[in-house]
Amino acid sequence: MTTFPSSHLDLLESQVATLATIDRDGLPQLTEVWFLHDEGEVRLSLNTSRAKTKNLIERPACSLLLLDLTNPYRYLEVRGRADVQPDPDYAFARKVGAKYDDDLSSRDRPGEGRVVVTIQPVKVHAVDMTG
Amino acid sequence: MTTFPSSHLDLLESQVATLATIDRDGLPQLTEVWFLHDEGEVRLSLNTSRAKTKNLIERPACSLLLLDLTNPYRYLEVRGRADVQPDPDYAFARKVGAKYDDDLSSRDRPGEGRVVVTIQPVKVHAVDMTG
Repeated sequence: MTTFPSSHLDLLESQVATLATIDRDGLPQLTEVWFLHDEGEVRLSLNTSRAKTKNLIERPACSLLLLDLTNPYRYLEVRGRADVQPDPDYAFARKVGAKYDDDLSSRDRPGEGRVVVTIQPVKVHAVDMTG
Repeated sequence: MTTFPSSHLDLLESQVATLATIDRDGLPQLTEVWFLHDEGEVRLSLNTSRAKTKNLIERPACSLLLLDLTNPYRYLEVRGRADVQPDPDYAFARKVGAKYDDDLSSRDRPGEGRVVVTIQPVKVHAVDMTG
């Protein structure tokens, strides 16, 4: 279980976060993603067909930035490596769906699946430039 | 001069963006930064002492995400490589300062300097998941 700073715990409940992976050319790739603060960790449910998912399987280095949309000078960065596990019965996808009141399986096409991505932090960086 | 999609031009005038660099361990590092849409390019004025600046000098791979804070399902990603040039007389820092009504030099300590970072895009990715 990862300890996150108490000053930024509210951001773990926010709706979207910015995920950085590293693409096949070695460039950072940024996308907005849904996430869940689950069992003390920051986790994502990703469709297996997405470039970001393939990036994480081939290169686990990643970072997730949780931004305070009402004050973008305040944010939490969770930098580390992704542990990617199958989610064949969509058990974890349903947990994420409960947060968003959404059926994630309805977003997947035939042949696609889901993985559970757990970010294993190397560095947790809490920023508040507004002091 | 880079062509950005007309649907997302407003984001080039926004206040902050998320910069991804790659740290010495090969992990993506994310920070919020000021930026300027200048002469057709996306540019930053960075203090030479910062980790992100050192990352960009050693590893130019980078990405900048311009997020619509009122609708985080809409954003523009500018992925590419950083061209880093000295700004010894703070000429570019003053241009950025004009956008923010701020004297960037007042933020630097003795011995620190500024560089002009121009992102040379490899990929420009305009996203609107609400569209």
